[in-house]
Amino acid sequence: MRFDQGGLEILGADECRTLLGSAPLGRVVFTDQALPAVQPVNFALLDGDVIIRTSVDSKLSAAAEGAIVAFEVDDFDAAAHTGWSVVAVGEARVVRDPGERAELDALPLRSWAPGERDQFIRIRLEMLRGRRIPGGSPTPERTPG
Amino acid sequence: MRFDQGGLEILGADECRTLLGSAPLGRVVFTDQALPAVQPVNFALLDGDVIIRTSVDSKLSAAAEGAIVAFEVDDFDAAAHTGWSVVAVGEARVVRDPGERAELDALPLRSWAPGERDQFIRIRLEMLRGRRIPGGSPTPERTPG
Repeated sequence: MRFDQGGLEILGADECRTLLGSAPLGRVVFTDQALPAVQPVNFALLDGDVIIRTSVDSKLSAAAEGAIVAFEVDDFDAAAHTGWSVVAVGEARVVRDPGERAELDALPLRSWAPGERDQFIRIRLEMLRGRRIPGGSPTPERTPG
Repeated sequence: MRFDQGGLEILGADECRTLLGSAPLGRVVFTDQALPAVQPVNFALLDGDVIIRTSVDSKLSAAAEGAIVAFEVDDFDAAAHTGWSVVAVGEARVVRDPGERAELDALPLRSWAPGERDQFIRIRLEMLRGRRIPGGSPTPERTPG
């Protein structure tokens, strides 16, 4: 195992991909009117890309077009103070090609939110980075004084 | 109840603050070397500000100094396809004043990650925005104490 300078276990690319595939929900990080923005989304993976369904007039749809975004998944146990996170960065694009749209429409991907979500956003993931809080050896509480 | 154009319930500011106070973990969204970055953190609230412990040489510490960041908390039920999210945007700063540092050090806030985390970052939250997928659970009552 390798650890970063903050004491967190560094996860390899294969493990990052496995964890990404296990997560029901992720968060897209983008810029909206020059301010940092983040939105939870359910998603599917296709050929290693993240696929999101949104509405044509969504903020995400407008902001993500051709932009570099981050995509994050995590799972933490608040009682045990353990967990992991995986973050990827990559270019997002709105899918307009009819053939590609048909392929994505066949995925088992329906938005959890109500309403029409007929726009697909596809994020080509690069630079996967995963970290895990080491388990088994709980962090000692610092004693005051 | 009010709904946004995507069919999600719009949460009021009071409810956003209550949900923020109920979350054990949030995610800081910032910019790292001109790329979008996101990091899960445990946190405390003080006077409505988010307080995070990190290490002096952390990426977050370097990137957050004086920057406008987003802070996100959410809770989703993947089986029921329900849940909520709250996002706030505000200025982050590294706390250097000894008196303020002492005040923050007295908070019940210990990083879940191992190692020394002696740097405090304080985020003044503004522009709270909350959304809930209709059909989700009601906001939990704030527990006393």
